[in-house]
Amino acid sequence: MPITAQNIYQNLELVRQRSPLVHNITNYVVMNLTANALLAVGASPVMAHAPEEVEDMVNIASALVINIGTLSRHWVEAMFKAAGQAKKKGIPIIYDPVGAGATPYRTRTIRELIQAVPPTIVRGNASEIMAIADDTAKTKGVDSAAATEKALDSARSLCERLDCVVCVSGETDYIVGKNSLTMIKNGHSLMPKITGLGCTASALCGAFAAVNPDHFAATTAAMAVMGIAGEIAAEHAAGPASMQVNFLDALFTLTGEEIQQRLKIAC
Amino acid sequence: MPITAQNIYQNLELVRQRSPLVHNITNYVVMNLTANALLAVGASPVMAHAPEEVEDMVNIASALVINIGTLSRHWVEAMFKAAGQAKKKGIPIIYDPVGAGATPYRTRTIRELIQAVPPTIVRGNASEIMAIADDTAKTKGVDSAAATEKALDSARSLCERLDCVVCVSGETDYIVGKNSLTMIKNGHSLMPKITGLGCTASALCGAFAAVNPDHFAATTAAMAVMGIAGEIAAEHAAGPASMQVNFLDALFTLTGEEIQQRLKIAC
Amino acid sequence: MPITAQNIYQNLELVRQRSPLVHNITNYVVMNLTANALLAVGASPVMAHAPEEVEDMVNIASALVINIGTLSRHWVEAMFKAAGQAKKKGIPIIYDPVGAGATPYRTRTIRELIQAVPPTIVRGNASEIMAIADDTAKTKGVDSAAATEKALDSARSLCERLDCVVCVSGETDYIVGKNSLTMIKNGHSLMPKITGLGCTASALCGAFAAVNPDHFAATTAAMAVMGIAGEIAAEHAAGPASMQVNFLDALFTLTGEEIQQRLKIAC
Repeated sequence: MPITAQNIYQNLELVRQRSPLVHNITNYVVMNLTANALLAVGASPVMAHAPEEVEDMVNIASALVINIGTLSRHWVEAMFKAAGQAKKKGIPIIYDPVGAGATPYRTRTIRELIQAVPPTIVRGNASEIMAIADDTAKTKGVDSAAATEKALDSARSLCERLDCVVCVSGETDYIVGKNSLTMIKNGHSLMPKITGLGCTASALCGAFAAVNPDHFAATTAAMAVMGIAGEIAAEHAAGPASMQVNFLDALFTLTGEEIQQRLKIAC
Repeated sequence: MPITAQNIYQNLELVRQRSPLVHNITNYVVMNLTANALLAVGASPVMAHAPEEVEDMVNIASALVINIGTLSRHWVEAMFKAAGQAKKKGIPIIYDPVGAGATPYRTRTIRELIQAVPPTIVRGNASEIMAIADDTAKTKGVDSAAATEKALDSARSLCERLDCVVCVSGETDYIVGKNSLTMIKNGHSLMPKITGLGCTASALCGAFAAVNPDHFAATTAAMAVMGIAGEIAAEHAAGPASMQVNFLDALFTLTGEEIQQRLKIAC
Repeated sequence: MPITAQNIYQNLELVRQRSPLVHNITNYVVMNLTANALLAVGASPVMAHAPEEVEDMVNIASALVINIGTLSRHWVEAMFKAAGQAKKKGIPIIYDPVGAGATPYRTRTIRELIQAVPPTIVRGNASEIMAIADDTAKTKGVDSAAATEKALDSARSLCERLDCVVCVSGETDYIVGKNSLTMIKNGHSLMPKITGLGCTASALCGAFAAVNPDHFAATTAAMAVMGIAGEIAAEHAAGPASMQVNFLDALFTLTGEEIQQRLKIAC
């Protein structure tokens, strides 16, 4: 059954009502934006990375989001511990493989993490998804160097192998599930000019997956909400910084009518 | 003697004139906002957490603010060192027990820190203050799960035991001193939708305590300035992000007249 | 030959066209702003600090910016590794000695780093530049305590000794090269009220040096772009936070005409 604007709005309303606690182990660059975006969408963010406490934090959380944007040894240790506990507890686990393919350390870490604890959802740009799936991809820093479409094969293979939802985000966002594919064509060209909107999308996937056991629908809803808020934000933006302010405000005020009017979804 | 709008404005003017150096060991999520809020209010922020340098930094600072929002082992080591040196030097020490009660690691760390070096001021939400004072409280992430009023008993007991000022912040902010209680009823419902405004309040307590040896009055002034700037910010906010921009601008431009007109204080 | 508005705009256009990958090892407080400023000016930012990956990241980067604002042991280790690899590879290396002079640890670390790997460009405020060059300077936190002019002698001596460009930033920015000195008198008094604009300037020096082998001209262009964007931003700012939003927007939209009209340069 196709996902409608109404479904997406219902997901958003569930996040607002239940305010799920989303535990993030993410990078230094985006922590503030991630926390503010989770608050704006109605969720409760918490950031914790000490090996001494990540399992306890997972125990009170409704989703775990792991982002490898600024890795280091002790953080990697915490990621494995948190992911293991989240799997045991059965809450959704979202991986954001920031910069996979850019350095062997990143590629190796995310692959080992996926191997040890398969995720519920993976969200990355085309080159990151390709870097996880095979050895031939190259990433230019953390931006997408390969056409999103080319990454679809990698996404399908990851989805099959790990039994998870894979989202390849870009101008069009592709959400790949078992035997299903949905495309979201919302968004705006100013969005990649703001650091961390990809990371924000992954965090929102966590918030939506926390309230909707259909993780394919939850990921689709999160990506649609991102794109639509981005379009609304761009209407009165003078550049990327006012765009970011407007984006968070739009997440906070987003209505069912706005989703209905703007949603560009295809299967 | 009751604290007046004029007293509060005098405190703010002192911060602007003296621009005290406030040393923060705080969490990754809020560092940027904390530094900008301290600058906006007229203080000089510095962030430093290496055990190799925290004592030297304390030696040139006028207040030390310790926030446990994103703990890890080396940072805890630095917190103890910095607090010890601040006590030796006699500058105000402010603790912000972010997420106390959420994990044993946080609760244990802040309790040991308080045991080793009693603070000048503690500021937290209701559940955090209760988690420091007794073993029965539970925190939902870093938001307040318990009614502020219920935490007053914990605050009084901490105040007695540690001979410090305790601020329980929430819709009403309670400032608890020896035989004194003041309530600030300023603020706006959008404020908890911005990550780190509680941490900002603790940092401002540091700035105000740096210029006013009456730490009860300094804490009251800091909380009043927070709440009033929040009210002014909300008047033209379209959501939490424009609210944050307006809030920092309002801290920077706050006048004695605005404090006079808006202050809602009670004893 | 004097540097003109047209030269500066050509530098900016080169950054926008080539979008150089700038590798930053910088402090927690400013990472988000630094990344957004690099994006706004047209560059591609990446932040990475793990000793396990910094050399690999340097290998795909076009400039390396090292900022000592929030030092710790493992980060210092990564700084030395990254700088060594950048020197081997021949890409520009920019040092930002945040808070040099404030603690012995900072002063010692930046001096050892300079000794081990001489930079292409150093940018700091007056007291930081003096703290690198000699033992008599004192820093009050991370703000400038000494008149910029007094630091010119230190800058000239550093420039000679290290064969690098030295920028002493302040109300007037001094760019010191071998037998050359340029002054930029653009900027606005609200700029020091935003945390991390100095760090942003250093990051932009990296972006400009990545596209212009004349590092003296690149530094001059970066500082001019900073100051002019600051002036434009201030025209509609209500305080430091709206100033920061406007500043990033202005970086993104800056035109050759705006540079032409506003540039205040002197040799």
